[in-house]
Amino acid sequence: MKKHNFYAGPAILPASVMAEAAQSVVDFEGIGLSILEISHRSKECTAMLEEAEALVRELLGLTDGYAVLFLTGGASTQFFTVAHNLLNKDLKAAYVDTGSWSSKAIKEAKEYGQLEVLASSKDKNFSYVPKGYDIPEDLAYLHLTSNNTIFGTQLKEFPATEVPLVCDMSSDIFSRPLDISRFGIIYAGAQKNLGPAGVTLVILKKDLLSKIQRTMPTMLNYSTHVEKKSTFNTPPVFPIYVSMLTLRWLKANGGLAAMAARNEEKAQLLYDEIDSNPLFEGVAAKEDRSLMNVTFVMSAGNEGLTDKFLADCAAAGCIGVKGHRSVGGFRASIYNAMPKEGVQTLVDVMKALGNK
Amino acid sequence: MKKHNFYAGPAILPASVMAEAAQSVVDFEGIGLSILEISHRSKECTAMLEEAEALVRELLGLTDGYAVLFLTGGASTQFFTVAHNLLNKDLKAAYVDTGSWSSKAIKEAKEYGQLEVLASSKDKNFSYVPKGYDIPEDLAYLHLTSNNTIFGTQLKEFPATEVPLVCDMSSDIFSRPLDISRFGIIYAGAQKNLGPAGVTLVILKKDLLSKIQRTMPTMLNYSTHVEKKSTFNTPPVFPIYVSMLTLRWLKANGGLAAMAARNEEKAQLLYDEIDSNPLFEGVAAKEDRSLMNVTFVMSAGNEGLTDKFLADCAAAGCIGVKGHRSVGGFRASIYNAMPKEGVQTLVDVMKALGNK
Repeated sequence: MKKHNFYAGPAILPASVMAEAAQSVVDFEGIGLSILEISHRSKECTAMLEEAEALVRELLGLTDGYAVLFLTGGASTQFFTVAHNLLNKDLKAAYVDTGSWSSKAIKEAKEYGQLEVLASSKDKNFSYVPKGYDIPEDLAYLHLTSNNTIFGTQLKEFPATEVPLVCDMSSDIFSRPLDISRFGIIYAGAQKNLGPAGVTLVILKKDLLSKIQRTMPTMLNYSTHVEKKSTFNTPPVFPIYVSMLTLRWLKANGGLAAMAARNEEKAQLLYDEIDSNPLFEGVAAKEDRSLMNVTFVMSAGNEGLTDKFLADCAAAGCIGVKGHRSVGGFRASIYNAMPKEGVQTLVDVMKALGNK
Repeated sequence: MKKHNFYAGPAILPASVMAEAAQSVVDFEGIGLSILEISHRSKECTAMLEEAEALVRELLGLTDGYAVLFLTGGASTQFFTVAHNLLNKDLKAAYVDTGSWSSKAIKEAKEYGQLEVLASSKDKNFSYVPKGYDIPEDLAYLHLTSNNTIFGTQLKEFPATEVPLVCDMSSDIFSRPLDISRFGIIYAGAQKNLGPAGVTLVILKKDLLSKIQRTMPTMLNYSTHVEKKSTFNTPPVFPIYVSMLTLRWLKANGGLAAMAARNEEKAQLLYDEIDSNPLFEGVAAKEDRSLMNVTFVMSAGNEGLTDKFLADCAAAGCIGVKGHRSVGGFRASIYNAMPKEGVQTLVDVMKALGNK
């Protein structure tokens, strides 16, 4: 049976990417060796790393003022690394608290300098995105989380400010066109829209790096990785390679504008069913609904159908639909690589439950 | 043409491991999804992570007092993480400087506490392993590098001391039986004897972790990963998976004692040729020669044959034989997965050069 992968992360990747990656695990580009066993300084691996960076630059339209880094440790490592590189006790940074991940980012950063939480949606279990807060002008940076995987909300607009934006885009990078010039640092664990687990993409404006003095471990200093082009030590070759293949696929399928249109269409299909089927209701405020992670629950009085619905999903090949424990109910993650037919299959299961 | 992979790292892995890994990139255990796209909290992935840990425990004979962690960031990240967790300004640690990697470990650790370098072989470009140094009794730990990939030396014995040993075993872990009870922490980037790039194995005695007080980023605190069994955040699933397959292969092929015998035999074959062929000479002191990385150069007067020899190697399918720039000449890395026939092919090329 065909499986439809709704996992929140690690998550669905294009089938063609998996097929090519599998071939390269046996023999990479016909060189008679696996991608897993070649030196990261070999000419084949160097060319692959360069192509990965070039694709990031092309798809996002980056200028030379930005560095593109392939690191490890996930967004969880960036939570403190950002502050470690940009903040000290004389400087102030601001955060907007939109869910579990931004709360963790705040916790890790506050050891390094003055932190101000400008707004939070914790009062309603992070089911909306705060707006209209004032942004001080004297900030080292303003930290945002563009998409909240657990709660199913997404920033539709980024605040207008001269302050450098630092943004955790782990779960919606490459899902829509962006004006990168407004961002100082973008970081993203790859395992949602970019590739498999094991690599973290960091995009940073190089002129941000000379603002503070701190003795840092070499590996925590962004400048190390900028200077050495992510090969100060052995990078996670295969996770980068699969990300590169995914970026090739993205480009071949029309780039970010085409992805955005496709993502809008898929999300609309699912939200329309949630709104029209009396058995279900959405979790997030409508204007803040994520196009990546669709959260919903059984409507009041129908909670008893939860297990039945999950069993129906499994029977239809829909995997990973159970909601996160912080929200309950259901979550369908429909990243770039999810085809419309996968969403349609889930919608059909929802409709069938209503007709029984 | 069959390729013989002598890269120092990322390095050769068993062919059967690569074949199985490729299959799992397409369909993992028949579940209809790739290993690259399943949640790290799925039951299939959880079982795989548990098997990886169990194999490390079984092969090394670990007691419950040790934790087994699968982290990221390589040995370069462990250089400062070890000190971050075990050292402060009131405590002293000692290091033995046996090459580039231990020099980097010293550099990263000295910000955290009092450091003493007990011995160094820098005077002879790290071509031997210092011995017979005195070890103070008041150390938080003594740091060693068991195998020096660049210079081709290896510790044949570990110093007798009650001080906890911290050891970078990146390039010879799982190559021979070890009395683990003498070690406080062992760390190893996977990409030599264990798996592909992208995962770092850390084995640590849990009672070492409560010795100092320091406010630490959550991700740098070993206790985080001990408590969460390496899944505080998304672990590098595929690199761990390939490591698990390699450990299965190791166990099926007789475990560490069998590996040690095989590694002795392969190294002997190559060192015998270096010692008997007048065109070549070894770099490392004979009693300290590495069984993993065999370093050698053209003998005096024959330096002009360097390029010819490298071309002959390439023609015979031997890849990655060029020496590191710090040493020059040649380096043949003959980790666990290198079959004897690969070493024999290289020896045949050396013999043929002598006969021309």
